[in-house]
Amino acid sequence: MIQNPKGTRDVNIEEKIQVNRIIKIITEVFEKYGFNPLQTTILEKYETLAAKYAGGSEILKETFKLKDQGKRNLGLRYDLTVPLARYIAMNPNLKMPFKRYELGQIFRDGPIKTGRYREFTQLDADTVGSNSMLADAEILAIASEAFSRLNLKFIIRVNNRKILDAILESFKIPPEKRETMILSIDKLDKIEVSGVKKELREKGFKNIDNLLNLIFTNDLNDVKKKIKDDSGIKEINELLKCSKLLNVKNLQVDISLARGLAYYTGTIFEVYLKNSEIKSSIAAGGRYNKMIGNFIGNKEIPAVGISFGINVIKDAVKENKNKSITEFYLIPINTLEKSLGILTKLRQNNLKCDIDLNNRGITKNLEYASKYEIPYVIIIGKDELKQNKIRLRDMKTGKEKLVTINELILRFKKFNKPQD
Amino acid sequence: MIQNPKGTRDVNIEEKIQVNRIIKIITEVFEKYGFNPLQTTILEKYETLAAKYAGGSEILKETFKLKDQGKRNLGLRYDLTVPLARYIAMNPNLKMPFKRYELGQIFRDGPIKTGRYREFTQLDADTVGSNSMLADAEILAIASEAFSRLNLKFIIRVNNRKILDAILESFKIPPEKRETMILSIDKLDKIEVSGVKKELREKGFKNIDNLLNLIFTNDLNDVKKKIKDDSGIKEINELLKCSKLLNVKNLQVDISLARGLAYYTGTIFEVYLKNSEIKSSIAAGGRYNKMIGNFIGNKEIPAVGISFGINVIKDAVKENKNKSITEFYLIPINTLEKSLGILTKLRQNNLKCDIDLNNRGITKNLEYASKYEIPYVIIIGKDELKQNKIRLRDMKTGKEKLVTINELILRFKKFNKPQD
Repeated sequence: MIQNPKGTRDVNIEEKIQVNRIIKIITEVFEKYGFNPLQTTILEKYETLAAKYAGGSEILKETFKLKDQGKRNLGLRYDLTVPLARYIAMNPNLKMPFKRYELGQIFRDGPIKTGRYREFTQLDADTVGSNSMLADAEILAIASEAFSRLNLKFIIRVNNRKILDAILESFKIPPEKRETMILSIDKLDKIEVSGVKKELREKGFKNIDNLLNLIFTNDLNDVKKKIKDDSGIKEINELLKCSKLLNVKNLQVDISLARGLAYYTGTIFEVYLKNSEIKSSIAAGGRYNKMIGNFIGNKEIPAVGISFGINVIKDAVKENKNKSITEFYLIPINTLEKSLGILTKLRQNNLKCDIDLNNRGITKNLEYASKYEIPYVIIIGKDELKQNKIRLRDMKTGKEKLVTINELILRFKKFNKPQD
Repeated sequence: MIQNPKGTRDVNIEEKIQVNRIIKIITEVFEKYGFNPLQTTILEKYETLAAKYAGGSEILKETFKLKDQGKRNLGLRYDLTVPLARYIAMNPNLKMPFKRYELGQIFRDGPIKTGRYREFTQLDADTVGSNSMLADAEILAIASEAFSRLNLKFIIRVNNRKILDAILESFKIPPEKRETMILSIDKLDKIEVSGVKKELREKGFKNIDNLLNLIFTNDLNDVKKKIKDDSGIKEINELLKCSKLLNVKNLQVDISLARGLAYYTGTIFEVYLKNSEIKSSIAAGGRYNKMIGNFIGNKEIPAVGISFGINVIKDAVKENKNKSITEFYLIPINTLEKSLGILTKLRQNNLKCDIDLNNRGITKNLEYASKYEIPYVIIIGKDELKQNKIRLRDMKTGKEKLVTINELILRFKKFNKPQD
């Protein structure tokens, strides 16, 4: 049977118009914040994707492997961060900070669940080469502005890995047990306090009520009194200060937030929809100060970034659905030559026009325009042309009007936009 | 060593800014001509790519193969046409004609030559479901308008497969030998008339001087007298008529043009640069009336399309190179809090702004802005702020000016663009 590979799907025209609008809004925000576009490759050497400090073993299990004709081991990238690290490593002369954004397809050969695909679109922005919390605040400001522009009701949950580490340290949790403990704590949203406690007890942790109460009470002052290393608290306070000055909205500290990936070293955040059926995050990210440097050889190259999940954002944005971008559909009635002249003139004035290609009758043509929800139809008959006019039909109201081409252009003309 | 896979490369920021500008111009033209965006998958079932009527055996040799965790045979797409055919086959209720464009990455595991990559970007437009030469003329008009807008000097060479077929028929070349003969004739540009004659003699063809003279004389009236089936001539004349009405520029009939791919059935064309070192085509396409229908089962679904080669076009466009999109770079001098307020206000007015993240001195900051060719620097010191002003430095001239924030915004403000 003719179909897509399992776990993949096409983005149809109605969806793609919406996706393009979302991408345009987010990339406009990126560019306002000083980020420039970069395009890395989808194909990577397998050894790059499998590097010790890359995505980790869990994600490597879901990596598509292939070989080129020279039998070299390749893989399809599973994120846009590892290719960025590889790019930085290959270009040691880049002036820092290096602020780039990238849009591209990502591949994960994982189990198929609702809303999870094996090929999907990600849109990332990262600042490489700055340790300042201002860089982190800019990333949060991007999320805040992008989702505001998309008219979505969102909340940004933010934490700092160093706070969690300091808490576990002060409660004398041995370093080798911290990862598994954090994974349970991170599930607070899904399984509630009682579920987290149960899971941790099953994992063999004892006397953890005070620890968990401290985390779940979510009070930074409280935490500060109980821990030795307060660098995480200092960072998050600095982040909150900068975020306020950058007008970040709906920011909420959440000490239980951990995020799965091992490579985060400081700020971590996730953006969620408020009052929505969509429970997964719509954007997320954080600071990873070690990963890029490790690609080069133990140099410290600080970095902070955000990933927008384009598929889930598309599902969240309900407005502005369009079946077609086309604005005008021309129906010549035995007037093909003159109609092509009119068509050319309208396009020269930047109107988005289509024309009947199959010499169909007016009913079929109106059906066609209606199916694609094209807002205006232009009927060009000999009688109309004798008066130097065409018939403009508003497809929503069904009303028709005789107008000259110049009147039409004056009413709808879009001026040539200056090149960006 | 850290590097890209062999035969692939990243598109750096300067190139990507240029590539994005080119893509924007071409897609704006597509949309003016009634084409809508579609996004098919990069992963395809291997059987789809290997289908009898798909790209053919030569291209299949260059197809990257891989398997998913369920051991299903997959491949990376080698063009955007086969995925379109697969999409049409999967969506039998699409209203025809179906006009779509698609931008995406393409993969070919071929030999590495200058300018040939194993992963590259293609931008296609196709009209599916119309047999009219008006559809073909629209495709040529798109090429003409896009390259005019890109300020490139181009020539569109056009032919019709049926003309070549009719000539070979009338000279009694047996059908099984036509493909190899056409491949030699197609080399006229590269090896001249004498080279084509030599190659054909070596392939065992005899008494072909009259045939070749007819083709190379390139006179449609001449050809018309010598062939029985003149349907190709009729089509190309209709195409020329429509193209003229659609204002297609620099169109040139070339009876020797054949194009490699087997699936073309009528109009074929290639766009070249005039007076350029770049000898390869910058766009090409044609009519393929059988391929899509064959995916469904011998239904005839006519189609015509064009592919733009984004890499080669980027190499051809010399103007408008930019190292960064950023317009303003802010340097706070012990004024971080106030500077962040100013930064936020400028961004709210849609100015593209960056700010010193690393608390560096003014010299280092100016070096940074200069390296990225950011046109304006805004220096924010305490003395300036006392007057409610900032220092605006034009990086080209080195001239500085004290201005208020409102003066700055009034001078540079871009209004919120309406949503497309």
